[in-house]
Amino acid sequence: MEKERLGRQLDFIMEIDKEKNIFRQTHLSGRGRQENDAEHAWHMAVMIYLLREYANEEIDLSKAMMMALIHDVVEIDAGDTYAYDEEGLMHQKEKEARAAERIFGMLPEDQAKELRELFEEFEAYESPEARFVHAMDNFQPLLLNDSNNGGDWRTHKVCKSQIYKRNALTGRGSAEIWEHMESMIKENIRKGNIIDE
Amino acid sequence: MEKERLGRQLDFIMEIDKEKNIFRQTHLSGRGRQENDAEHAWHMAVMIYLLREYANEEIDLSKAMMMALIHDVVEIDAGDTYAYDEEGLMHQKEKEARAAERIFGMLPEDQAKELRELFEEFEAYESPEARFVHAMDNFQPLLLNDSNNGGDWRTHKVCKSQIYKRNALTGRGSAEIWEHMESMIKENIRKGNIIDE
Repeated sequence: MEKERLGRQLDFIMEIDKEKNIFRQTHLSGRGRQENDAEHAWHMAVMIYLLREYANEEIDLSKAMMMALIHDVVEIDAGDTYAYDEEGLMHQKEKEARAAERIFGMLPEDQAKELRELFEEFEAYESPEARFVHAMDNFQPLLLNDSNNGGDWRTHKVCKSQIYKRNALTGRGSAEIWEHMESMIKENIRKGNIIDE
Repeated sequence: MEKERLGRQLDFIMEIDKEKNIFRQTHLSGRGRQENDAEHAWHMAVMIYLLREYANEEIDLSKAMMMALIHDVVEIDAGDTYAYDEEGLMHQKEKEARAAERIFGMLPEDQAKELRELFEEFEAYESPEARFVHAMDNFQPLLLNDSNNGGDWRTHKVCKSQIYKRNALTGRGSAEIWEHMESMIKENIRKGNIIDE
């Protein structure tokens, strides 16, 4: 029985190795290569630990970190859709729901349920942890992109209105971080990295 | 004052982006490319969360996860030394101590102290968290290597005695995981992937 349980846990652990090959639109600092999902999640989890003092509400730290670590697991089946590809995003939710069933379903039943719920909680954007993890999910690529003089925004001709729409709820996770992000966004508009419309 | 604090936190967060370019000897499953430190740390943190039921002693989950997430930060300055490069490992400790001073020192003083102590606790191998995180640090590459038919062991002509030496304390972190690892090691000796001496 125990062997079976560990076996299922290890099957899941090996399955998510594939996240290291799912590349995002964001590039590493120093105008490096594109970042993958595993690296992005690692960076977010460190940020959650170090910046939790700025969360609007108290958060359960290990829960928020695990939420970040697994929030992109579904992209193993569903792929990454760029934050500003609105047509792609419409179909994404459906593909992600099927992926969550398959991938989290590899785990023993109690953990499958726990991780599916953690993923759904992230998507629902309603708990203190979901709000703060979403704030970090938006802040992390903004930091990289800002460090690269807005290269990804320029490549994709991203407008101010798109960024504000995506970040409509970021301030609910952390008012202080959103204030800092807004000053970075304004500076990038001023430099012409983000289109002012 | 607050700006200065957030500024130092963000300097550290951007500095550790470099971990994504520090490549280890281990290859991704499916005989993929070499794995980097950020991916390895992400994978370990997920494993700690999912496998903590096998830890010999109760662990503080967020502490153990953060210990895993930052345990290789020092390699930004010190580089990665292969687990079985004994000459390289002698000089590694000294380089890593200097790196810990510089890199964790970028953070506000309270967090610099906290992370330096967390890293030292990992290195000292004496707390329940350090023991379990070390077990995962050894288990994660073994899983990848086993999935690749022992390619990295064969490339580096690794012997059974080296693996047992490196894992001398793994069972203190988790007797059950070590039992499973030992059966995997024996199977790889049988297949000729690990030299039997």
